[in-house]
Amino acid sequence: MVDILHRVGMKDGTPEKVYDALTTVDGLAAWWTDDTKGTTDVGGVLEFRFPPGGFDMEVIELRPREGVTWRVVGGPDEWIGTTVDWEIRQDGDYTIVLFKHQGWKEPVEFMHHCSTKWGAYLMSLKALVETGEGTPAPRDVQISNWH
Amino acid sequence: MVDILHRVGMKDGTPEKVYDALTTVDGLAAWWTDDTKGTTDVGGVLEFRFPPGGFDMEVIELRPREGVTWRVVGGPDEWIGTTVDWEIRQDGDYTIVLFKHQGWKEPVEFMHHCSTKWGAYLMSLKALVETGEGTPAPRDVQISNWH
Repeated sequence: MVDILHRVGMKDGTPEKVYDALTTVDGLAAWWTDDTKGTTDVGGVLEFRFPPGGFDMEVIELRPREGVTWRVVGGPDEWIGTTVDWEIRQDGDYTIVLFKHQGWKEPVEFMHHCSTKWGAYLMSLKALVETGEGTPAPRDVQISNWH
Repeated sequence: MVDILHRVGMKDGTPEKVYDALTTVDGLAAWWTDDTKGTTDVGGVLEFRFPPGGFDMEVIELRPREGVTWRVVGGPDEWIGTTVDWEIRQDGDYTIVLFKHQGWKEPVEFMHHCSTKWGAYLMSLKALVETGEGTPAPRDVQISNWH
């Protein structure tokens, strides 16, 4: 089992702002992908769509102002059954996000791509919280021929 | 043991250009840190310095136009003894870089930070190859309170 890990910090952010960006359809659409739909309660499924495909995430746990955990129930084979965990906490002027995409079976080339791409999306989340404007798909940063 | 993995692709790049950016002092200084010194041959040590500290990398293997491997011989405790491996290959119009920072003992919070930060530096390498201009430290993208 191998994991993708990231950490970003939002200057002058608040845990509430970050939690909203991770647990509401409007918040998620403002940094990850315009095409976000679904149910945000525990047990609900969020549907994220991108030009090349998409992911369905079941909401496993909500920890108000502290984090959220999803399980991937639809999308590429390599993603099915993996979990995505977000941890939020305040550290002085910065709101810190610890991100883990866990349970990959093999460190395939697609996992390398997803790691870099998650990093770029986390910078979009950071921009959203700090400036009010993220760069969700289809206006996301292209990192390679795989988009 | 846990690893940091990334993948980027440089449009209209060449393996030669990327190899030069990874194996010459001038190339490395143009995307990672202005303050790069040292010896680029196998067995030599490259010294990378940043405002908060730095890393010494022993060059373990050079594979012309295909990659390079370093071993960390100086820097933060968590980095000592880890390896950084770069694999280069052409895929149509894109030069692909597969990056692995391997051998971390524990998935500590600092590893989360380094993963995101490597992603940002790989985007600087991509910009250098595609446009002739990267954003090495101290002009690098700040991702959090840890820089």
